[in-house]
Amino acid sequence: MKIGTIASHSALNILSGARAEGFDVVLYCTPGRRKFYSAFGLADAIVEVHSFDEILDTPMEDTVLIPHGSFVAYIGADRILASDLRLFGNKELLRWEENRALKNRLMREAGLRVPREYASVKDIQTPVIVKTYGAAGGQGYFIAKNAEEAQEKMRPDQLYSIQQYVVGTKVFVTYFRSLAHDRTEVFGADIRYETDADANLRFDDTPSFIVVGNLPLVLRESVLAKYYRMGEDFVRGFQRLTGQDIPGPFCLETIIDREQHIYTFEFSGRIVAGTNIWIPTSPYSYLQFGEQMWMGRRIAREIRELMEQGRLEEALT
Amino acid sequence: MKIGTIASHSALNILSGARAEGFDVVLYCTPGRRKFYSAFGLADAIVEVHSFDEILDTPMEDTVLIPHGSFVAYIGADRILASDLRLFGNKELLRWEENRALKNRLMREAGLRVPREYASVKDIQTPVIVKTYGAAGGQGYFIAKNAEEAQEKMRPDQLYSIQQYVVGTKVFVTYFRSLAHDRTEVFGADIRYETDADANLRFDDTPSFIVVGNLPLVLRESVLAKYYRMGEDFVRGFQRLTGQDIPGPFCLETIIDREQHIYTFEFSGRIVAGTNIWIPTSPYSYLQFGEQMWMGRRIAREIRELMEQGRLEEALT
Amino acid sequence: MKIGTIASHSALNILSGARAEGFDVVLYCTPGRRKFYSAFGLADAIVEVHSFDEILDTPMEDTVLIPHGSFVAYIGADRILASDLRLFGNKELLRWEENRALKNRLMREAGLRVPREYASVKDIQTPVIVKTYGAAGGQGYFIAKNAEEAQEKMRPDQLYSIQQYVVGTKVFVTYFRSLAHDRTEVFGADIRYETDADANLRFDDTPSFIVVGNLPLVLRESVLAKYYRMGEDFVRGFQRLTGQDIPGPFCLETIIDREQHIYTFEFSGRIVAGTNIWIPTSPYSYLQFGEQMWMGRRIAREIRELMEQGRLEEALT
Repeated sequence: MKIGTIASHSALNILSGARAEGFDVVLYCTPGRRKFYSAFGLADAIVEVHSFDEILDTPMEDTVLIPHGSFVAYIGADRILASDLRLFGNKELLRWEENRALKNRLMREAGLRVPREYASVKDIQTPVIVKTYGAAGGQGYFIAKNAEEAQEKMRPDQLYSIQQYVVGTKVFVTYFRSLAHDRTEVFGADIRYETDADANLRFDDTPSFIVVGNLPLVLRESVLAKYYRMGEDFVRGFQRLTGQDIPGPFCLETIIDREQHIYTFEFSGRIVAGTNIWIPTSPYSYLQFGEQMWMGRRIAREIRELMEQGRLEEALT
Repeated sequence: MKIGTIASHSALNILSGARAEGFDVVLYCTPGRRKFYSAFGLADAIVEVHSFDEILDTPMEDTVLIPHGSFVAYIGADRILASDLRLFGNKELLRWEENRALKNRLMREAGLRVPREYASVKDIQTPVIVKTYGAAGGQGYFIAKNAEEAQEKMRPDQLYSIQQYVVGTKVFVTYFRSLAHDRTEVFGADIRYETDADANLRFDDTPSFIVVGNLPLVLRESVLAKYYRMGEDFVRGFQRLTGQDIPGPFCLETIIDREQHIYTFEFSGRIVAGTNIWIPTSPYSYLQFGEQMWMGRRIAREIRELMEQGRLEEALT
Repeated sequence: MKIGTIASHSALNILSGARAEGFDVVLYCTPGRRKFYSAFGLADAIVEVHSFDEILDTPMEDTVLIPHGSFVAYIGADRILASDLRLFGNKELLRWEENRALKNRLMREAGLRVPREYASVKDIQTPVIVKTYGAAGGQGYFIAKNAEEAQEKMRPDQLYSIQQYVVGTKVFVTYFRSLAHDRTEVFGADIRYETDADANLRFDDTPSFIVVGNLPLVLRESVLAKYYRMGEDFVRGFQRLTGQDIPGPFCLETIIDREQHIYTFEFSGRIVAGTNIWIPTSPYSYLQFGEQMWMGRRIAREIRELMEQGRLEEALT
């Protein structure tokens, strides 16, 4: 059996981890990136494709694919859901992640505190982030301090979604749900490094939040204990709603305000790029395993243990 | 002999390090945190308590306790000082840390540059941080650019302490004072991640400084050399004032301004949570030991070496 | 053969790496720093000098020196270029780095996007950073939002250089050019921690950019692939201009704006202090080598491999 993925996002993380656990690996790679990935020792693992959606038609009977953020971006959730790719993780969660209403329903079912949504500008009682419909990729929105400022900045002919803007520190926590051990592990914490929100200076009051990288973070231990419970609650919430489990990595994307309230504004139901900062180990995974454990390796370890238990199919969808 | 601590702050750091050095460990843990600490492999080390101050009445003849920030927060400095707990480190330093006047006296004796204290608003010559008496936990104060702004924000019926607010970058440096080797080691540097001071946006001019986590930092080597001397000066200052040593970890909490002056505004006489970012190693501890060395392990290594030298009692108070 | 350097900047990084690869080491150290470097196990490697430029007259027939940022600062580019020191790396690159016109020529030849230079205040079309001639060390300049603001802040009797100020996130990427493997490796990414640009508060609109340390960073994998190409382009640009190679470490100093354009505003043709954050390993070097690899060790590994190939002289100038 091989472990494979497409050449983007966290492919280096995933495939180096698979190799560390003794697996053969496959990298579906476009021509322009061949040299880059070869420089990291993956030359002999490359299967060249001209666009990533070719993997939908590529025979790969013995390969388990590890999905990451670029799968949806390049192939699309619908086509992935309709495909017969052997993906590690829960495809159904992808559907809940892609749909704003389902996403909010899951976060609320899990008991997470989420930012308020305002139906109309006259309901606004907090700072807000106002997005035009269809906005994506960290642009196409503005932030307003209150209803008056929001009103001023909105155009009458435009549809908007209005969400509470929580003033506080960004915290992204990644988890690993292990079926082999029937437990939810806190893997690590990080901060997205965003342009130009994280610039030293900016000459307007509308930062953009385009992720260029990630910074490592540890949490106060009492705060970490809260996030541990949130991760468990998230898994249980999904189980209640769907009767299904969440094998593998997921991420809760949060803001902590000055009252120490933790607002979850987003989740990801698969490996996130923030785990790349924790190669070859995070403090939390080291505490848990007593050896260097990065996310790609954690995934491969789980696959190996499930194979030994004859249960791998439970983690594939 | 066992190494123990209470289930908060840096307990994972401390106990994982003790185990790495071959010690049995004890975790005094409240019921609500049992599951969290069990998830990190500490289930069989847990002694359940309903509140942390129960350890004052718990028999633990062969256990050395490693105090951390939550000891004072949950039990109180007075009761710790009056107890017969076998603590690693110097209890007397705790007394100097808890009392603002003693604290300043020690920092000045050590030759550290400290922010100015202003007796009255009319003396103000710099930006200031103005605290109401009894304020704690990163709130209950405001920052003012100058005397005029401070005057405006102060209420006539309220007592305040007025301290210079140093504009610059936050730098927290942790040290380890080894009796076994008679030396002061620089262990690592970090930055507190504070809400909402470290938020991307804030709609007022009064940030709060509530610590939610820590970020890793290395210093310019010439700056590191200065901090090394400051750590040595701190130990010598305490020795001059009390005739006693400071076994184990301590931390200097500083701001570096644009003139590259280093202001020390606070110290901690025990392990700080900032060392959690350096699990399993910091660059500085790796340079020193040539192996992965986190603070919990460093403490346990010292205890082991002092036992081998028959000198452990010197480090317990 | 020994590996040596002067006691500053990244000396701990360099010499610990040399030892890890089995080399004897020499540290040219001033008296005031002897204790600091001894604390890191280098006591027996110290050759005391009263000022660093004494190394110009110190016999060291079998020692290869690893130059770092303090060489130019303490000894001067001219004297280094005129000396017969056996330096690892390309001295000629030093000349291109020291001269603003040559520096820009090399960056443009390499196809890097560089900030615009404005000949006159009336040409300004972007935010600008305006420097008085002779300014150095992160001070002696101001930032202006546009031509009007620049005009206001400039004094008629003063000469200035005017450069586009790019609003965005700071990203410093370090590379290692290996002659032994004929390849350019991405070593790591970091962020300079600067006072008071990175302070939580500042009461003026002119931040200073005095480096006090470095923070670790990983880049989005697609962004990393771009930086990989930029590193290769930089080497090829220098080869086209001079017919020479760049053995060893170099660094591109960039800003990413909200359009995701990467502006290179500076480069360094030798080890930078930012690599100190990646002791004992960076994610990228770990992915490449499958073991802990910091920059000092990478340099020593290259020297050892070139010696085995009988080609060390190619990397010395």
